[in-house]
Amino acid sequence: MNVLVVYWHPEPKSFNGAMFQTAIEALEGAGHKVKTSDLHAMNFDPVSGRHNFTTTNDPEFFKQQLEEMHATENDGFAPEIEAEIQKLEWCDLVIFQFPLWWFGMPAMLKGWVDRVFAMGRTYGGGRFYENGVYKGKKAMVSVTMGGPEELYVKDGWNGDLDAILRPIHRGVFEFNGFSVLEPHKVFGPARKTEDERKAELDNYAQRLTSIFEEPSIKIGQY
Amino acid sequence: MNVLVVYWHPEPKSFNGAMFQTAIEALEGAGHKVKTSDLHAMNFDPVSGRHNFTTTNDPEFFKQQLEEMHATENDGFAPEIEAEIQKLEWCDLVIFQFPLWWFGMPAMLKGWVDRVFAMGRTYGGGRFYENGVYKGKKAMVSVTMGGPEELYVKDGWNGDLDAILRPIHRGVFEFNGFSVLEPHKVFGPARKTEDERKAELDNYAQRLTSIFEEPSIKIGQY
Repeated sequence: MNVLVVYWHPEPKSFNGAMFQTAIEALEGAGHKVKTSDLHAMNFDPVSGRHNFTTTNDPEFFKQQLEEMHATENDGFAPEIEAEIQKLEWCDLVIFQFPLWWFGMPAMLKGWVDRVFAMGRTYGGGRFYENGVYKGKKAMVSVTMGGPEELYVKDGWNGDLDAILRPIHRGVFEFNGFSVLEPHKVFGPARKTEDERKAELDNYAQRLTSIFEEPSIKIGQY
Repeated sequence: MNVLVVYWHPEPKSFNGAMFQTAIEALEGAGHKVKTSDLHAMNFDPVSGRHNFTTTNDPEFFKQQLEEMHATENDGFAPEIEAEIQKLEWCDLVIFQFPLWWFGMPAMLKGWVDRVFAMGRTYGGGRFYENGVYKGKKAMVSVTMGGPEELYVKDGWNGDLDAILRPIHRGVFEFNGFSVLEPHKVFGPARKTEDERKAELDNYAQRLTSIFEEPSIKIGQY
């Protein structure tokens, strides 16, 4: 199968970086094809604007969704956006690898979402959620938290992590038609020993070798 | 009182732009002092990295929170970050004005959060949530949704909007000690008539004239 790993962390030597490398090796080792979007290495621009496009629908008033629909009709996505959309079209599974920052994706990854998921091309015209463009594809968050797990439970200080991830699971993945896999969570990697971190990486590699056998979880409406 | 309005939309002539201008005029008209962070006009860089700082804690391994703690001790925040932190310190109320993109803040605003809320300076050492650094200050989201309200309710396609906003309310505002005001929501401004948009702006201006009399809402743990 084909897997796209989209990854951002400002330090390549970070645990997130190790998770990214682990994913590539484990998936290729299991016979899958892997493409990556290493956003830090790519120096990806997370800011949306007219530079998303080579075409112009309305030069007087910039409304991104209308420009996206126009670009869809006229092959008008900027090359760096077109390349990312084609990776999404190619993959059977997309993985987002990132550290949880302020209960969400770091800006770089959020900007990838803002720019790459485009009306007309990846959704729209009744094609969303259960009729989404990417129906049949799977998506998974692989996320690290700085703090311990007890902060991220119901009645914990931060609350249930699944509720924190819901905007990604429902608003990005399911909206565009992806089935959601159980998120892969690592708590407090900086507080772990080298052996414990190694065990986490091994655990992740092990999971990924049979990732396509996993059932999806339904986020749905609530 | 002192109010900071942090705003991003890629089109200054947008309804979000009108909400931003309305807030400035209404708040100043009510006798308050207003500072702004118009992130599009500022061409603010949303990407975190060593450029957040003038100091270096560890040149070999970049861990942002450790660099933030070091910068706090050594007056080491980059001038554009220091300026934003000082606006937070100055204000009694901060307003985030933005369009909801993919169930969250657009990347530019998320990057402002990622870079400006800094360990050591705005939180840390036991200072978070009810003991947060900005205890006594208020914070409010003023947000537009492309779709109609019926999408954003429990059992609607997108689910309860309060759940979608929780990462901002709990993870950013309450975490740093702010009390949260009821979010100001406008649904589908592009689908409204000019008169209806004008009425929305008037309604917002009216609310802001007595904003400091409003009770805060408790997000809390869940």
